[in-house]
Amino acid sequence: MIKGSVGTVTTQYYHHPSPLDLESGELLPSFTLAYETYGTLNREASNAILVCHALSGDAHAAGYRAGDDKPGWWDSVIGPGKAFDTDKYYVISSNVIGGCKGSTGPSSENPKTSEPYGTTFPVITIRDMVNAQKFLIEHLGINRLYAVAGGSMGGMQVLQWTVSWPDFASKAIVIAATAYSTPQQIAFNEVGRIAITSDPAWENGKYYHQKSSESNGPFRGLALARMVGHITYLSNESMHEKFGRALQDKDRIGYNFSTDFAVESYLHHQGDTFTQRFDANSYLYITKAIDYFDLTKDDSLAKGLAGVHAAFLVISVSSDWLYPPYQSQEIVSALTTNDREVRYSEIRSNFGHDAFLLESGQINYLISQFLRRTVVGDVMIKDVPTIEEGATTAVTARRLINLEVNHLPVLSGSDQLVGIVTSWDIAKAVARNFLWLDEIMSKDVITTVPDELIESAAKKMEEHSISALPVVDADQHLIGLITSDAISILIGRGNS
Amino acid sequence: MIKGSVGTVTTQYYHHPSPLDLESGELLPSFTLAYETYGTLNREASNAILVCHALSGDAHAAGYRAGDDKPGWWDSVIGPGKAFDTDKYYVISSNVIGGCKGSTGPSSENPKTSEPYGTTFPVITIRDMVNAQKFLIEHLGINRLYAVAGGSMGGMQVLQWTVSWPDFASKAIVIAATAYSTPQQIAFNEVGRIAITSDPAWENGKYYHQKSSESNGPFRGLALARMVGHITYLSNESMHEKFGRALQDKDRIGYNFSTDFAVESYLHHQGDTFTQRFDANSYLYITKAIDYFDLTKDDSLAKGLAGVHAAFLVISVSSDWLYPPYQSQEIVSALTTNDREVRYSEIRSNFGHDAFLLESGQINYLISQFLRRTVVGDVMIKDVPTIEEGATTAVTARRLINLEVNHLPVLSGSDQLVGIVTSWDIAKAVARNFLWLDEIMSKDVITTVPDELIESAAKKMEEHSISALPVVDADQHLIGLITSDAISILIGRGNS
Repeated sequence: MIKGSVGTVTTQYYHHPSPLDLESGELLPSFTLAYETYGTLNREASNAILVCHALSGDAHAAGYRAGDDKPGWWDSVIGPGKAFDTDKYYVISSNVIGGCKGSTGPSSENPKTSEPYGTTFPVITIRDMVNAQKFLIEHLGINRLYAVAGGSMGGMQVLQWTVSWPDFASKAIVIAATAYSTPQQIAFNEVGRIAITSDPAWENGKYYHQKSSESNGPFRGLALARMVGHITYLSNESMHEKFGRALQDKDRIGYNFSTDFAVESYLHHQGDTFTQRFDANSYLYITKAIDYFDLTKDDSLAKGLAGVHAAFLVISVSSDWLYPPYQSQEIVSALTTNDREVRYSEIRSNFGHDAFLLESGQINYLISQFLRRTVVGDVMIKDVPTIEEGATTAVTARRLINLEVNHLPVLSGSDQLVGIVTSWDIAKAVARNFLWLDEIMSKDVITTVPDELIESAAKKMEEHSISALPVVDADQHLIGLITSDAISILIGRGNS
Repeated sequence: MIKGSVGTVTTQYYHHPSPLDLESGELLPSFTLAYETYGTLNREASNAILVCHALSGDAHAAGYRAGDDKPGWWDSVIGPGKAFDTDKYYVISSNVIGGCKGSTGPSSENPKTSEPYGTTFPVITIRDMVNAQKFLIEHLGINRLYAVAGGSMGGMQVLQWTVSWPDFASKAIVIAATAYSTPQQIAFNEVGRIAITSDPAWENGKYYHQKSSESNGPFRGLALARMVGHITYLSNESMHEKFGRALQDKDRIGYNFSTDFAVESYLHHQGDTFTQRFDANSYLYITKAIDYFDLTKDDSLAKGLAGVHAAFLVISVSSDWLYPPYQSQEIVSALTTNDREVRYSEIRSNFGHDAFLLESGQINYLISQFLRRTVVGDVMIKDVPTIEEGATTAVTARRLINLEVNHLPVLSGSDQLVGIVTSWDIAKAVARNFLWLDEIMSKDVITTVPDELIESAAKKMEEHSISALPVVDADQHLIGLITSDAISILIGRGNS
């Protein structure tokens, strides 16, 4: 295994056999999502992080698939010791519906006709993408995400997650994104779509019958769309550094319409290779989803984000002119207005929009700092099994065994935490012949609160040699439990 | 006549029957330039200003052509009382070769084949455009331009004028331009070209046989190229103000691929109307000329501009991201390094690149201030007829009459200015029977120097009731002459 890499990975597929309600009112009869996972889900299923990809991304975010010579698209930040540390977290990367990378999209077969959907595929939105992902996450046995993260369109999915299910993800990381598409962004997307649909080989989206050894379908139009897109992903500065006015394979300018400059050759290459790996109709659908994205409500982003609960890390890139820093600042401002926890950083970089994939040093640092600052509320188990204080030791013992837990918080008639009981206490009762729970439970219970940093909670457990802490609110009502196992992994002591 | 307008204008055509040497080494067998003129050329031909247009511009810069309901492209700054004040200046607007607006370009007939040139038209450069214009200017009887001005590609032509003929234009006004195309600019142009050449209707440039009532040739590709271009001409802010996320003719988003947003509809319209007025091959040739434009020498713009003599006004636009202010600042910096006179202003505007056409208030102010600050050297007549101090009054009189001048500076044997003689002095000689020039000429000659402001020179003439001032260098050698007629027009007293 390469150091710091998740190693060899395999893309998996989640099939959802029943219909998905779409924002448009249409139904998608069934769908498949391609996904990959890295790291191990802990017993409490509390260390899962979902990463969401950009326009042309896929499920393959890290490591190497058999035969690959290039790693996944966010390999720089996913892996042992990296920001999304697979020694601590269970990282899930899900492809989006509408795409063409193993998930259901316009190039998929319509089960009703056994033909590719083409433009009969229903128009999907970022909300629909996220709805589909939620089924996958729950299928993986996860009822709460520790974090959801993504750049560009991935960042839009992150925002949508926090709006659609405010309590599902504890942390949200939004990079080089926006809470709504601007007319300039829509304009660039529309140019890409016109490039595709103006290509006679598009055939109104019914080009899948075309077969060729190289490209099929409207590859000229798709290449052109990608060229436009690619210009917007780079900054003026980075193009300068990368190409300047260097000529391509010639000593002097040609005074003809062959390729003169290196930058032209680069764009042609980007356009051409894209047609080998992306479906033109998917490009139409996904750009449309991006255009539709708008989390403002009554023209106010603060209103649109009023319901979110996650703690946010928002990152922008100084030279990103496609999703400029002011759009990230608007998100920050709306969250602050709603008194939500938010950190903001503008990365200094010349790479333009693509910096979210390239500035691995800065991104790793910011994300690991953010994830590290975890509070008890982020990782506690909710719906903790409890027992009433009047119980017998026999009832207590059966409850422990049946639920396969080691700790049972003991509640009073008014639901206040009055003690905690463990299997060790049961042993004590047997030894000393105690019949009542009240005689064996620990009454001076060490507790914690949701806002306590997990580092501090971990220290308490260490000092008192206990392996779980009940989490209580201001009235001593039990609201959760954290265990030393879960915490030690999160704060990086799992491997020490 | 509309107040402040040049009124009705007619486009004229200059035909150059002999070959034009092109930068590529090719020859253009002959060429035509469409042009318009506004205002009146003064007797000394010293008040001519050439304005140069941008990519898709034409000769029609001001006023109304018969049947037009819209004025020329720079009507906001050309006309009586405007920055390019047609009461003072003779303004010439010349179309470029390579274009399709009456000047020779790829859609013109190749005289050798009687077919349209198409892609057999030689590749032209900004230098070639300017070379062709110089023939026109000289044809109009002008040996020196008072100023040359333009925005965008027009600004490139201005810079090229000052480099190609350092002494031909006294003043140069460069707006929203650059001294070399950057890779990002080349990339956008290349996308436009690929859009055109990928359109099957382009037919390798031989599409002129196609006839239709609406558009012909590769109109889809050309529209797409224009759409991309148009995005680069507007700023993110101005698109926001203009469109926001407003929907086009609908109350809710359509969840289909019809036009949803007003910005899309606007772009379609811009693209479509462009195909009615522009030739696709011209788009290829002119964008290529822009790409090739690079006035740096050994990677140094200071070296590239070392030879220029004109006084410069450089204007950038705060929100112009196609030709950002830093590129104007590079021009200023290079000129300053060479100790050239240069003024720089960054217009505060949200209009983006198009501000050079739209911010008429700021542009009018900056240009009139700049043009007003004229020095004697800018407007003096060179090659002034003179007479030697030993001449007779009879010889002097014949010389005045034959040359049709009112003043003759008198030079010593060592070519120093020793006096001035006028027809009035001849009258005096006749009256008093003086035979020698020495007896009648004024010996205490009031003179001026090239750096004196014309306002100051005008004041001298007024105070001394004289109608011409010899211009001398530090050694009292005559280098020119200015007359009150020429000056009074320039400083705005011609109409008072």
